[in-house]
Order: sequence, then C-alpha cells, then structure tokens
Amino acid sequence: MKAAIAGASGYAGGEILRLLLSHPEIEIGAVTAGSNAGTLLGAHQPHLAPLAGRTLLETTDETLGGHDLVFLALPHGQSAAVAERLGEDTLVVDCGADFRLTDPAAWEHFYGGAHAGAWPYGLPELPGQRDGLRTTRRIAVPGCYPTAVTLAMFPAFAAGLAEPDVVVVAASGTSGAGKSLKPNLLGSEVMGSVGAYGVGGVHRHTPEMEQNLSPLAGAPVKVSFTPLLAPMSRGILATCTAPAKPGVTPGLLREAYQAATKDEPFLRLLPEGQWPTTSMTLGANTAALQVTLDERVGRVVAVVAIDNLTKGTAGGAIQSANLALGLSEELGLPLNGVAP
Amino acid sequence: MKAAIAGASGYAGGEILRLLLSHPEIEIGAVTAGSNAGTLLGAHQPHLAPLAGRTLLETTDETLGGHDLVFLALPHGQSAAVAERLGEDTLVVDCGADFRLTDPAAWEHFYGGAHAGAWPYGLPELPGQRDGLRTTRRIAVPGCYPTAVTLAMFPAFAAGLAEPDVVVVAASGTSGAGKSLKPNLLGSEVMGSVGAYGVGGVHRHTPEMEQNLSPLAGAPVKVSFTPLLAPMSRGILATCTAPAKPGVTPGLLREAYQAATKDEPFLRLLPEGQWPTTSMTLGANTAALQVTLDERVGRVVAVVAIDNLTKGTAGGAIQSANLALGLSEELGLPLNGVAP
Amino acid sequence: MKAAIAGASGYAGGEILRLLLSHPEIEIGAVTAGSNAGTLLGAHQPHLAPLAGRTLLETTDETLGGHDLVFLALPHGQSAAVAERLGEDTLVVDCGADFRLTDPAAWEHFYGGAHAGAWPYGLPELPGQRDGLRTTRRIAVPGCYPTAVTLAMFPAFAAGLAEPDVVVVAASGTSGAGKSLKPNLLGSEVMGSVGAYGVGGVHRHTPEMEQNLSPLAGAPVKVSFTPLLAPMSRGILATCTAPAKPGVTPGLLREAYQAATKDEPFLRLLPEGQWPTTSMTLGANTAALQVTLDERVGRVVAVVAIDNLTKGTAGGAIQSANLALGLSEELGLPLNGVAP
Amino acid sequence: MKAAIAGASGYAGGEILRLLLSHPEIEIGAVTAGSNAGTLLGAHQPHLAPLAGRTLLETTDETLGGHDLVFLALPHGQSAAVAERLGEDTLVVDCGADFRLTDPAAWEHFYGGAHAGAWPYGLPELPGQRDGLRTTRRIAVPGCYPTAVTLAMFPAFAAGLAEPDVVVVAASGTSGAGKSLKPNLLGSEVMGSVGAYGVGGVHRHTPEMEQNLSPLAGAPVKVSFTPLLAPMSRGILATCTAPAKPGVTPGLLREAYQAATKDEPFLRLLPEGQWPTTSMTLGANTAALQVTLDERVGRVVAVVAIDNLTKGTAGGAIQSANLALGLSEELGLPLNGVAP
Repeated sequence: MKAAIAGASGYAGGEILRLLLSHPEIEIGAVTAGSNAGTLLGAHQPHLAPLAGRTLLETTDETLGGHDLVFLALPHGQSAAVAERLGEDTLVVDCGADFRLTDPAAWEHFYGGAHAGAWPYGLPELPGQRDGLRTTRRIAVPGCYPTAVTLAMFPAFAAGLAEPDVVVVAASGTSGAGKSLKPNLLGSEVMGSVGAYGVGGVHRHTPEMEQNLSPLAGAPVKVSFTPLLAPMSRGILATCTAPAKPGVTPGLLREAYQAATKDEPFLRLLPEGQWPTTSMTLGANTAALQVTLDERVGRVVAVVAIDNLTKGTAGGAIQSANLALGLSEELGLPLNGVAP
Repeated sequence: MKAAIAGASGYAGGEILRLLLSHPEIEIGAVTAGSNAGTLLGAHQPHLAPLAGRTLLETTDETLGGHDLVFLALPHGQSAAVAERLGEDTLVVDCGADFRLTDPAAWEHFYGGAHAGAWPYGLPELPGQRDGLRTTRRIAVPGCYPTAVTLAMFPAFAAGLAEPDVVVVAASGTSGAGKSLKPNLLGSEVMGSVGAYGVGGVHRHTPEMEQNLSPLAGAPVKVSFTPLLAPMSRGILATCTAPAKPGVTPGLLREAYQAATKDEPFLRLLPEGQWPTTSMTLGANTAALQVTLDERVGRVVAVVAIDNLTKGTAGGAIQSANLALGLSEELGLPLNGVAP
Repeated sequence: MKAAIAGASGYAGGEILRLLLSHPEIEIGAVTAGSNAGTLLGAHQPHLAPLAGRTLLETTDETLGGHDLVFLALPHGQSAAVAERLGEDTLVVDCGADFRLTDPAAWEHFYGGAHAGAWPYGLPELPGQRDGLRTTRRIAVPGCYPTAVTLAMFPAFAAGLAEPDVVVVAASGTSGAGKSLKPNLLGSEVMGSVGAYGVGGVHRHTPEMEQNLSPLAGAPVKVSFTPLLAPMSRGILATCTAPAKPGVTPGLLREAYQAATKDEPFLRLLPEGQWPTTSMTLGANTAALQVTLDERVGRVVAVVAIDNLTKGTAGGAIQSANLALGLSEELGLPLNGVAP
Repeated sequence: MKAAIAGASGYAGGEILRLLLSHPEIEIGAVTAGSNAGTLLGAHQPHLAPLAGRTLLETTDETLGGHDLVFLALPHGQSAAVAERLGEDTLVVDCGADFRLTDPAAWEHFYGGAHAGAWPYGLPELPGQRDGLRTTRRIAVPGCYPTAVTLAMFPAFAAGLAEPDVVVVAASGTSGAGKSLKPNLLGSEVMGSVGAYGVGGVHRHTPEMEQNLSPLAGAPVKVSFTPLLAPMSRGILATCTAPAKPGVTPGLLREAYQAATKDEPFLRLLPEGQWPTTSMTLGANTAALQVTLDERVGRVVAVVAIDNLTKGTAGGAIQSANLALGLSEELGLPLNGVAP
C-alpha cells in the first residue's frame, strides 16, 4: 500500500515518515508541503537519511491522488477541503483538529468558525472506538494532550472509581508547538526553563478530553487543564487527578488499571513504585502509566508519559490506519523508547 | 557582620556564598563541609571565582564559632545538634527541614524519628511571619516547593476566595535534589525527559504547605502534591488549583493578588495574560506569579515560578536573616533573573 | 541465532538490546550484569518495554554459554578473562578497549598494565577491515571517538590529500561516560554547560585514531585530540582538520569523499553547504559527514556526527557481527535518526 | 551618569540592562528598539523585573540624545549612521561589528560593502588596548568568539611560545545568534544536538581573531575557525591549538599564562588539572582559562570559557565603558558565575 504525506516538512509529517520507513506494508509515496514545496526533504528533515533526496511537491489533488492512504499534517482548518476532494475509498488520516470534536458548540467556543463535523476518533484504546476504526476511510487523530490524558484516566472512569472533576497539568516538549517561528520557541528561551501557557480553561484540547471521558463517567467530566512547556524536544508527562469515589481502595484502583491495560499492546502499566518519565517512551508508540490513591486527600492520581510525536500524533495515526487497512494494529510501531 | 556556612560544597551552600559575595553587610567567614573538608572550594564551586582558593574546614564548634550568623546547609537531621552548641545570640539559619514543622505528628509521619521542634518560619511574605523574624536568633528556611506553593496560594486563601482543597503539580530543576550521586540524577537520564516522583501524598514537603495555608483558610487545607523532575538545573514552576468559593469573579481574584503582592519586594504579579517561566527568576529572589479563574470548571488557577536555590533556599534564607539582623529585607538580593 | 549481553544494565548494553529488539535474525538470550544481577532489567532500562520483566543474571561461564554470540559491554580490563572461557566458535564482540590497540607500547602508555592483544577491528568502512571481519569469531568494537574521527578523515588520507598532522575537537553527549556516579556527570552540572576534559594528548582514544589513519597516510599520523562534554545525552560531533597537501582543490576533496562513501550504507556525505548535527543521527547507525577546504589557511576541515551509542558502540558492534555471522551488514540497523 | 540602550529588546541589549541594574554609577535612561518600539520591555525581557514596565522607544536622535553614554546593540550595518549623529562627547559603545576591523580588505571580504572605519577595540586585556580606551568616546566591542579566542591565545603569542598557525573550534550557546526567528534556532532543533556551521574560513569573526593576535606574534597569524552551536542558551567554550615553538616546556607555558593573567581582574587561570566549563562563567564577566603542552604532538592547547553575552558582549562593553568614563574597570561586573 502506498501513502502520501501532506505537510511533510513539519514535525508531525517528519515523524510519520520516520515510522513509515520501518513499516513493512506501507510504502512512502508523495511527500508534499506548502511554502516548502520544491525544496529537498533533506533540508527540513535531515534525520531521514533515506529520504533526503526527495523533492517536496505541492499539496494538490494530483500529488495526493492515486494513493491508498493519505496522511494530513496540515495547519488547523485546511484538512476538510483537501479531504473532500480525495476519493471516498482513500483512507484519509487527519492529524489536525478539524474532525475531532463532535459538539459544534464546543468547536465554535474553542476554535471559532464553522464545525466541519466529526470522523471516527483514532484512539483504539478508548472503549468503544476500536471497532469503528476497522471499517472507516476517515480518521481523526486525537490531539497529543488528549491522548495522554485519556489514556491516563479512562480506566478510572470506566471502572467507576473517580468523580468527574479532573485536574490535569501536563508538561510537553517543544515539538508539540510545531515548527512555528515564534520567539518563545527559540532554543535560547526554552532551554533551562519551564513555563505555563494557555491556563484557565482556554486550551483547545480541553473539550476533547471531556468528550472522551464523559461517556465512561456517565456524567459530564470537567477538566481543569494547564499545559506546560518543558525544555525538551519531545514528550508529554501528564499528571491527572480526580476525587476518588467513596470506597475506592488502592487495590481496586490497581485492578482497574491492570484490567484496562493488559490486552493493550501500547499501554504499559509500570510496576508499583515506578513512575513514568518521558524518556521511557521517546520515539515509541507506548504510553507508560502509573496510578495511585492519595488516601490523605482522597484523590486518584494517574501519571502518563507519551511521545507527543509518536503515540501522540504519528504513531497513533499509523496505529489507527493499520486497523482501517485490516493490518495488525501493531505493525511498524516501536514498543521501546530511545534512551538515554 | 560575619557569616559561617556549613555545607558549603553543596548546591544550597554554594548559592548562599554566591549571594553573600554581593551582600554589602555580610562578610563570608568559615566555609565548612563534611567529607569534602580539607579540599579547595574551587573544586566544588568552580563558578565562585573569588572564593576558589578557600579551603573547606571541618564542621565543628570551633570553625562555626565566632560568627554573627551561621547558615546550615546540612543533610536532614544534622542541624539540631550543631545549632544547640552555637551561642544563643548567634543567628542560626537552617536551610534543612528539621525545624519547619510545628506538628510533631506530621513530622513523625513524613520524616520519622523524634521531632526537634519548630523555629520561626523564614517566609516573610506569609501573613503573620515577618514580625517574628525581626527578633529571632533561629530561622527555619522553608522548603523550596512550600515556598513556591505558599506564595502562589496565600493571597487566595487570605481573601477567602478558594476552598481548602488544593491540587499542586510542580516541576523542579535537578538542583533541588542536591548533589546526590543517584543514577536518576545523571545528566544522561534527566536531559530530554520529564518525570514524576514522590506521587500520592508521600512527599515530605506536603504537610509544610498545609501548615502554611490552613490558618489563612480558617480550615485544614488538603494538598494533593505531585512533584516533577524537569530537564533544567534550577527553577520551580508550580501550578496550584483549588475550587473557587461561590461568587468569586476574575476581578475579585486579581484584586486579592494585587493587594497581597503590591508591597512585597520579591513578589511580582505579572501583567494579565503573561504567565510565569522559571527563566524569569533564574538567580533572582523574585517569585513571578499569575492567577486566573477557570470559569468553566470553577477553579482558581495560580502559577508561580521561583529559583529553587535562590528564593527557594539561599535567597529566602538571606532575606529572613536580613530581617533578623535589622537590615533592609532586600539587601544583597537580586530582583532580576539571568536570561536567556 | 541467539545473543547474550554481558553488562546489560549499562548504556552500551542497553543500546545493544534496543537494536536487537528490531533485528530479524538475532534473538536476545541471557542478559547479565555485575552488581545489578538479580534485579529487573526494567529498573535500569525502563525504555526497553518488551524486556522490562527480564531478570539480570550474573556474568558467568554458565549464563553466557550456549549462545551463538556474546556482546561484552564490560568495564575496561574484564573482557579478556570472560572471552577466553567462551568457546572458540562463539562470536565474541567486545565493546571495551581491551583488544583495540595493536601496539603494546601504546597500550601500556595510555592504559597501563599488560597488553591483552588485538582482535579484528570492527570498523568495516576503514579500508582493509571488512574482509577480516567476515571470518572472525572475535571483534574489537572501536571506541566512539575513534569511530567518528576515523570516518571523518580516512577519505582524505586514503586519497593522499592531507598531511599527517590532525587536530580534532570532538563534543560528546554524557552517555559516552557511562552510568558512572560522578559529580561532574550530574544533570545539574552538565545542563547548560560545555566543558573540556582529557586535554593535551592524554585521552585513551588518541592512539586508536592514529593507528587507524597512519596506514592510509603512509606515515605516522599525529593527532591532537580534545574531547568536550556537551549538554546532551547522545551524540558526537567531531571537527577534524589537517593541512592540505599541495595542489589539493575543493573539487579533488569532494571527489575523494564521494568515492569513499558512495558504496557505504552507513556513511552519508551531506550535500554541499549542509553541515552535520548530532540530531541527524540520533539512534541511527549512520555517520553524517561534510568536508571543505579552507583555502585561506590551507586546511582540510571535515566534520562528522554520529550517535556515540549507536554507530559509536552498539550499532557498530552489530554491523560487524552481521558480517561475521554471514548476514547482510545492514541488517537490523536504522539508517534514520529520531528527531527533532 | 546616564546610559541609553539601543536594541534593548534583543539578547545583547537585555544583558546590558541586566548588568547596569547593578552598576553603582550608571543609570538606565532611554531603552529603544526597532520593530518592538511601543511595547513594554517586560514582554521581551521578562527576567528584568525592575524594568518590566518601561516602554521601548523608537531609536532616534531624540531618544538617544541627552545621555552620557549610548550602547548600540543593533543589527550589523546600522551603528555608523546612529553614531555619527550623536555628539562627539557622548560615549558610544557599539556592540556590533561595524568598527571592529582595521583592514578594509578584510571587511569587504567578510562583510561586503564599504568599510566604516575602526574604533578603539574594547578588549582591555589585549596588550596595547587599555590605554587607548581610557580616553576614547567611541568603543568597538569585540565579537564574542574573538573575545574568547584572543584571551586564550594572547599569552602564548605575547611570550613567543606558539607558531602563528592556530586551529580553533568553539562551541557557543544559541543566544550568540540573537533572537533571529530561524528554524535551526528553535528549541526543538537545538536541544539534544551539537552542530557545526560557518565552516571553512567563512565565519566573519575569523579576521578579527587574526587582527588581534598577529601583532603579538610578530607575523600574520592564520586561524582555522570552526564554530559549533551547542544546546545551551549561553556560553562559549573555545579550544585553541597552535604548534609550540621549539624549546617550549610546560613550565614556560604556565609561567607565560600566569604572567599574562595575574593582574587582570577578569582573567582566571585555573589551577593545573582543572579545565574550563561554560557554567563556571555563566553571567560573569570572567574568562576561565587553562593551557597545556601536548608534548606528543608538539602543540600548545588553550581552552577558554566565557559567557558570550557577558564577557563576550555586554560585560566587555561595560568594562571598556568604565575605563572610558574614568571609573574602576571592574565596577558593576560580576566575577562569579551562576551555577549549577
């Protein structure tokens, strides 16, 4: 099968390419870009040695046509127009936000403008999602933060162990912000410094977290979400807490997480006492999880580490694409990280 | 006035020395160490050029005697014995935990062993503390995390705007762990990675936060505290949230923080919309604060950045010592950070 | 085929395991350690999710026996004793220094003690080495710095374009120093700082560089080598310069490097004008090269980037093992890096 | 005395302001900018708490007029026009390159365009420079790399111990490139990576190094210069080597460096065996030096660490300004670094 990648000069596009280079069933077809069209891929993705000599094409119907699947790694708002001109039997995997939210009101509040609709949500581990992904030709890849937070908290809600009032603080590497040329993303600014941004319920990933967890909680889940920018290129470390329901014990909590993760190839519940670090998952499609009950204050505390570009974007995209293509879900996706 | 520094080869000791080098009224006397006694200070603190030729002495009654003030930057549990042999008119400033907690039960639960007692608490900004510091000869310097969290949340509690149920996630640079030779503190492990540790109500700084905030809240404050290790040498960025009391508005919240900070030389409430980064405060005795009301979920969210070694340890120690010595509280303490 | 790894809790051992997890023809057998024997591999290599539950065994004849190949990632001086008790038909791949140097005098000068001898040198790209590796059962894996420097300079010497008087300054990530618990390797010390060490002709990798390049130069090559410790976990960036021979032109130089690299799968001569960065090669077995002629001063300047743990240690080891096992030299070795 | 700072929103301008905040004799007057004029300084230099509320003015004759001294931290090529409209009795300190080179041919070769002339060169430690700085109203602040390299090598040339054929490899933090919004300066790109740039005799700082050292060598000094970008915000670590003259011994070399540095307040020759790291000098106006003789290859090897923004730019500027203003050369300049 042959894949085109639109937005191949960015970080998400580069990670899709990196993973596809090791994928046994998907061949890399057209690589396209916006303003970088016409230049060599090697100028933008110098780590992708085998593809360095490829020329970036314009993102058009012609260049994207004739592929079995197309990955869209485009700026917010551009995916709908591209997708509708691709054939209905082409698998379109959108790494942008355009088709993630089901609620038009949430879309309008957080993104503004008209809601484009919702596609099957590419998080197979979220109860209820996997089967729909097997038959779809359209996939909305989750946001990186919602991937992390949903994986950390769904077992607690699915087992009825937490109140629907979640506080999340998540530190992300700078690649989550893309290759944007903004002063606050310069190396001189980010090295040696952690900062908060998008505080107070304004980050666009907030409603996506609530959308994922509310059905499991059987009630509207409220998420207080604070993202942090950390001095690293990759990785998200999310700390998620919610009040424990009455009667929850450490044993019940651990059992719920074991049950929820034991058959999931990319969910790794760490042994008790070991806590996630992002380096565990660098370059891997694995989410490293740990959970505990803070009995002093009566809260469930779950911590998760993912690579924002791998499980949080490109790896998650390929995992869902594998399902839609009838392949093994795990195909071509690394379980181990690159460390130290 | 002349100061001795016990524990001068460690990070807290080094920062005390760095600040004292610019202090117009305090002269550096004996510098002492444990196993490093007999070696040159320049081997351990190579950045302190003017002191590089000093020899580290043993930490004894003789070497510490004859000083107007003594800073103790010793491992947990050693300060009491040293302090009691120093004269009652010597100002003793303990950077360790030994005399921070007033509740023996909290001490035993979190630290184990017998409670040594409590000294005046060296956080002048905490309502009720400053006056006691002016007359004391014994100061317990707060922990770095409690300094950050207390400064972020005291205005909300003092103004009656928050419920006593706080969730804190705080990212710290590695110097907070001292010069301990542990594998998880090696550069290879920490660079490029954020990780959680001490999760679930077990970190020893937790009761200290509760001790500080409860009197202002008029009720026992519960703190869910999760510390993170971030890939930077210095800095703490703490995100603190609590349910807003009924009727709280953004305006009331901002007013409370303005009122609480406007006369405090080291508390800097940022302009609305600007959020703290640790680099703002690197090497400074300043705490950078911002607060907002997340109206979607009804929570106060306060974020604070400090330098764990400066305001979080050595700068806070000198600030309180200035008070006890009858000097201007701000003497010798930098307001600006070193950036980028 | 089945491989044992001795020293599996260290950085070199961990990288061998990471690469073998993707190797289609080599299965991971015993994983052994020194003082960490009896503990779980996941405590030391938490990124190797699929192996986290493995228990580290003692390094003994029994645990290493019965394997087709054995990788030794042991402290300096221990390999000889282990190797001689393994059967002659077991492929032994030593990542340590013990069998790299052919000259006993150089060994004694730089390492001290008795010279253990020399094994075929595991750098297939070095002219004259590949064939010997195809038939050997003993391989001495090159040092990380000599790998970098040799790959940067052999084309110039092989083509007779440079005088045998080389100046090398090479910046390395901290993993090159292993997991040693030394204060100067703590994250607090290395982050935000570059420093020199082993300056003035005393670093042990110096004679190995000279040994590799002298036969090509047809004269004893002198290397002035200065290693730097850089604030990153992985990677070596080596700048190597030597006086150009009379008559050398930019064109001759480029041709020589093109000729020397065009059939080498792991040598990547960058397009003119693009210079290596270590991130290009992170996690890859690729060396990224660039060369120029500084006509103002008459010097060849070659710059190379490798991952010290991959091409510089574990990847180079597997590459040579592939040859010795009659497999494709490239098997299981990534060409692309992990970036950003 | 009152100083205006033109270019106050950039990194050099910010560092001048940081240092002036502690300068007892110079008051901060107008702060001006280009496209950032009209915005608050706190938006660009959030670490400069005491100045955060200042508004950046346009850079005009009016805003810069009426000051005793004016620091220019402007893009290359703009200083001449600004300077000529300031009165002749105003001390103008140019942090740009415009007036550094004395040789018009070198200027044209490396910078292009017309040569603006040369001003007294603000490196008081360079033999022959200090006296001229005491009386001038115009100062050309040296480039950051030339500062480092000149300080490392002048003692060897002044004492006649080295041949005029220098090889320099210098790793710099990213702030040396300023706040330019270029993809290769993004945090995601620079963290975890060292790379070379400007290789092969093309970096503009090369002729400045040669200009400084040639008079001392009594012959034209050739410099092979390779700059590296390292994953840190601040600091330069330069390794400089040159063939030793016949008869040079380690003792002669050490004596020469001791003699050249002993009366210089900002030159710190480390004890034998200790090598510079940039963290030693972070935020300090100190240069940390070490030198050795590599007797195997007959080369002098000198290593220097400076903070590129402090001694390499703003601190050097203030040091020279102090001289020109008749103040103590050391006034307001920190000797110690901020570490860890």
